[in-house]
Amino acid sequence: MSGSGESGYKRAGVDLDAAARSLDLITHAVESTYTPGVISGLGSFGGLFAVPDGYGSPVLVASTDGVGTKVMVASALADQPGVLEGIGRDLVNHCVNDILVQGARPLFFLDYVASSALDPETVARVVSGVATACRAAGAALLGGETAEMPGVYRQDEFDLVGTVVGIVDRADVVDGRDVVPGDAILALPSGGLQTNGFSLARSVLAGSYHEALPSGQTVGAALLAEHRSFLDVVWPLLAGSDVKAMAHITGGGLPGNLLRGVPRGLGADVRRGSWHEPEVFGLIETRGAITTDEMFRVFNMGVGFALVTAHGAAERLVEASEGSLVRIGTITDGGGVRIA
Amino acid sequence: MSGSGESGYKRAGVDLDAAARSLDLITHAVESTYTPGVISGLGSFGGLFAVPDGYGSPVLVASTDGVGTKVMVASALADQPGVLEGIGRDLVNHCVNDILVQGARPLFFLDYVASSALDPETVARVVSGVATACRAAGAALLGGETAEMPGVYRQDEFDLVGTVVGIVDRADVVDGRDVVPGDAILALPSGGLQTNGFSLARSVLAGSYHEALPSGQTVGAALLAEHRSFLDVVWPLLAGSDVKAMAHITGGGLPGNLLRGVPRGLGADVRRGSWHEPEVFGLIETRGAITTDEMFRVFNMGVGFALVTAHGAAERLVEASEGSLVRIGTITDGGGVRIA
Repeated sequence: MSGSGESGYKRAGVDLDAAARSLDLITHAVESTYTPGVISGLGSFGGLFAVPDGYGSPVLVASTDGVGTKVMVASALADQPGVLEGIGRDLVNHCVNDILVQGARPLFFLDYVASSALDPETVARVVSGVATACRAAGAALLGGETAEMPGVYRQDEFDLVGTVVGIVDRADVVDGRDVVPGDAILALPSGGLQTNGFSLARSVLAGSYHEALPSGQTVGAALLAEHRSFLDVVWPLLAGSDVKAMAHITGGGLPGNLLRGVPRGLGADVRRGSWHEPEVFGLIETRGAITTDEMFRVFNMGVGFALVTAHGAAERLVEASEGSLVRIGTITDGGGVRIA
Repeated sequence: MSGSGESGYKRAGVDLDAAARSLDLITHAVESTYTPGVISGLGSFGGLFAVPDGYGSPVLVASTDGVGTKVMVASALADQPGVLEGIGRDLVNHCVNDILVQGARPLFFLDYVASSALDPETVARVVSGVATACRAAGAALLGGETAEMPGVYRQDEFDLVGTVVGIVDRADVVDGRDVVPGDAILALPSGGLQTNGFSLARSVLAGSYHEALPSGQTVGAALLAEHRSFLDVVWPLLAGSDVKAMAHITGGGLPGNLLRGVPRGLGADVRRGSWHEPEVFGLIETRGAITTDEMFRVFNMGVGFALVTAHGAAERLVEASEGSLVRIGTITDGGGVRIA
């Protein structure tokens, strides 16, 4: 709403001096994301990005998302190195995965950081994480906004929202229309909760962030495990026509997401044990006395992203992924998502 | 993060049933915004929008913004008809104006509503306002997200964030490069605070929302006066080449925004009294014992949007605007924004 750099990267807040200082801290990080599409120096109310050439029928794919109450874990552990940067990366990776489902690559990203009080260092750390993940995804950080709203946000808490805009040729949209019973479901592992299920996880584990898991990792570190971007591993797999559908396993877990991109009426049989479940899920399940059913509806349980492919192509894709993909199940002719 | 319609209009929250009900309530409003560019039925993780034909060198212009603590006034007066719908319209109009500055028309919009507790009726009313303003601007409401974060947001408070993506031909970008001293500054009136300065306004007027102003309007109604969209009045004026630069007068007021879109080093002389100042500003100034200088740095003071044109074209533009535009000043060869 105020404050302005050449980049259109606005920063607002009650304390405009702090906002300006915050802007200085992040200008370099923001500009490091600029791809050739960014048109700078043409005013600063909006960010300008040239639609790239080479698309016969270019389709924009956009998604807005937050990182939920993972921000509260990050706030609580903000004094640890990399935590605030990590939540910034989480935000971008979540959004990048969302549009990857349709076969789109990101063009640009915009962020929003709001808090009870604008701490320039906090904003700078979060936005530097956003910028790092944008660079990794080839997305320009085209704009952003910071708002200081003490009456709206609880003290020391903040929210973090991002919007990604990507592009795909109409002919290359992954739309799931060819999915049929018998197709294989392949999974890419999550490193943990990604950015979903934190309200439940916190209700069970708040106060235990410094406790060690059997592996030696702390509960806090396990909860903050990065929301992985699946762009780099999935993109090469899209070159052929083996990938029929994809799903980003976010809130709602496998039951809520696995069939979002396939024709209505189809179901899925998923074999539990065919992939690795990070240990933090077991702790939440046991300590919170959560039913397995609820665990699967709230958490990704270790499956970060899923691809659907013809049975005969599954092995080829697993090999092409250099072992990242594991087969976890099969598309069926109905009955929803069954996990056994 | 969860919940899904055909539209890609996701809704998430702890209470997934409430989220689903909220989605039902708004699906019709959302779909009423769909323009021919929207590609539906191709999955629901991101929203798909075809880049329109007819642009020689299409440039996307994007902006993310919130409505600041105007949401707190809206929350306090949410029981009055139209208040929550109004804040939704405010959000869209703010964003639409931001990209209009560069000469862009909106293609699509995405919203984010987050609160301590997800009230489906509240979300539905806000999003129906978002949808109304999107329809008016020709923008498809392509996606959205709702988050319930009781630990982050204060009770009964919510935040509202939007992202607009618009388009302009590279050759038609309004970039201010031809602005020279002597050019005329024309203004379009705001109806009030638009969406800026609410922290200061609330500090002076909280508790006085039901008080009547001399005009009979209540203070609350004056504070919630709609953030006007200037798209309809400005767009026809862009057909010629008279408009050299534009500015959306947001946080930072005239001093902070008037020169954002003109070459560095230029200044502006603005004549106070040449436009109408809504009465609520006088009340804030007097009751809060705010200096005139601060009033102008925090509030738009009645100028919602400004255009810069050659001196000789000013009268033509004023006539073409059917009296909406008023001349408020002149571009100078330096000295910042001087208001006398």
